[in-house]
Amino acid sequence: MSAPIDFYFDFSSPYGYLMSEKIDALAAQHGRKVRWHPILLGIVFKATGSAPLTSQNQAKATYSLHDFERSARFMGIPYHHPEKFPLATQNAARAYYWLDGQDCALARQFAHAAYRALFVDNTDISSPEAVLEIAAKIGVDRNDLAIALQSPDLKEKLKEQCEAALKAGVFGSPHIVIEGEAFFGADRLPQIGHWLKTGGF
Amino acid sequence: MSAPIDFYFDFSSPYGYLMSEKIDALAAQHGRKVRWHPILLGIVFKATGSAPLTSQNQAKATYSLHDFERSARFMGIPYHHPEKFPLATQNAARAYYWLDGQDCALARQFAHAAYRALFVDNTDISSPEAVLEIAAKIGVDRNDLAIALQSPDLKEKLKEQCEAALKAGVFGSPHIVIEGEAFFGADRLPQIGHWLKTGGF
Repeated sequence: MSAPIDFYFDFSSPYGYLMSEKIDALAAQHGRKVRWHPILLGIVFKATGSAPLTSQNQAKATYSLHDFERSARFMGIPYHHPEKFPLATQNAARAYYWLDGQDCALARQFAHAAYRALFVDNTDISSPEAVLEIAAKIGVDRNDLAIALQSPDLKEKLKEQCEAALKAGVFGSPHIVIEGEAFFGADRLPQIGHWLKTGGF
Repeated sequence: MSAPIDFYFDFSSPYGYLMSEKIDALAAQHGRKVRWHPILLGIVFKATGSAPLTSQNQAKATYSLHDFERSARFMGIPYHHPEKFPLATQNAARAYYWLDGQDCALARQFAHAAYRALFVDNTDISSPEAVLEIAAKIGVDRNDLAIALQSPDLKEKLKEQCEAALKAGVFGSPHIVIEGEAFFGADRLPQIGHWLKTGGF
């Protein structure tokens, strides 16, 4: 079996959310697994001198807000643009890595729940409390996670993941890497599917 | 018959070139025509505070250069990234509008020839001489066009087109508008097809 596909994303990224709803099933069609890497776009944009789509210029911001919803409809994915946007996602990302260290299936379940809380249910997922609430609903011990979210080791882990993403050439979200071949954006899904099918084109 | 689709592009835009090879046939499948609007991204980027993909940051530039060629292969379009890039395209755009005032089919033929000269044959199309050479090959009178390229009216015409594009919300290339619905990027072709088929989704 081939190596897993790498999926880099920020929990505040609309196109990252769209990718999160499709990439596992697409990979599975070709016998592949996906390794999820939540990262912080704030760190990536600071390093690369970039900015969120909705903070670049008015024309692009207006278009992007419209395109998030239209792209979701086109892909058959529910989407409601959150009132608080963009927002801080270090707590969600840290919770993901803590869960992933214990039970990768539970971490994946948490990632879907956090993304859907933000982009379907209009929940502000930035605070530790909001993250604990999402995690508790899928059976995670609230106290254990609350303690973990404060640990310097977990903060360091997320920092290392962001640095590793930058080294891997990540400049935005979602960013997919298949054996060194990078695909940026949810709109690259057709190319990703064709690449997995043909082994490169 | 419905109103024509508007296609805004810069002659130096790789994804604009990819769109130019597909949009007329896609529109025709749905009984629609396309109105082409060459514009200058330099003016658009100055107004919107943006920059070319290959001048933003190293990671994005490296990715974009790779993606231009991969996207072309995926779409079955020949592509060779030009040595001179980006480059000035005001002469090509002015030639387009001058031809379009006389013979819109010839203008379209010129646009394809200019794009292919740049992105297939590695020709620097920035100078008036290069544009005259491309136009002469499709039967345009070289002297007439040379005089036209110097005319203040034609310069004004291109300026007005760039201003109209900005007013229409254009922030990059390619930018397609179907009765007020905007689609940015060659990767929106599947959505454009679906939109034309369904009348909106």
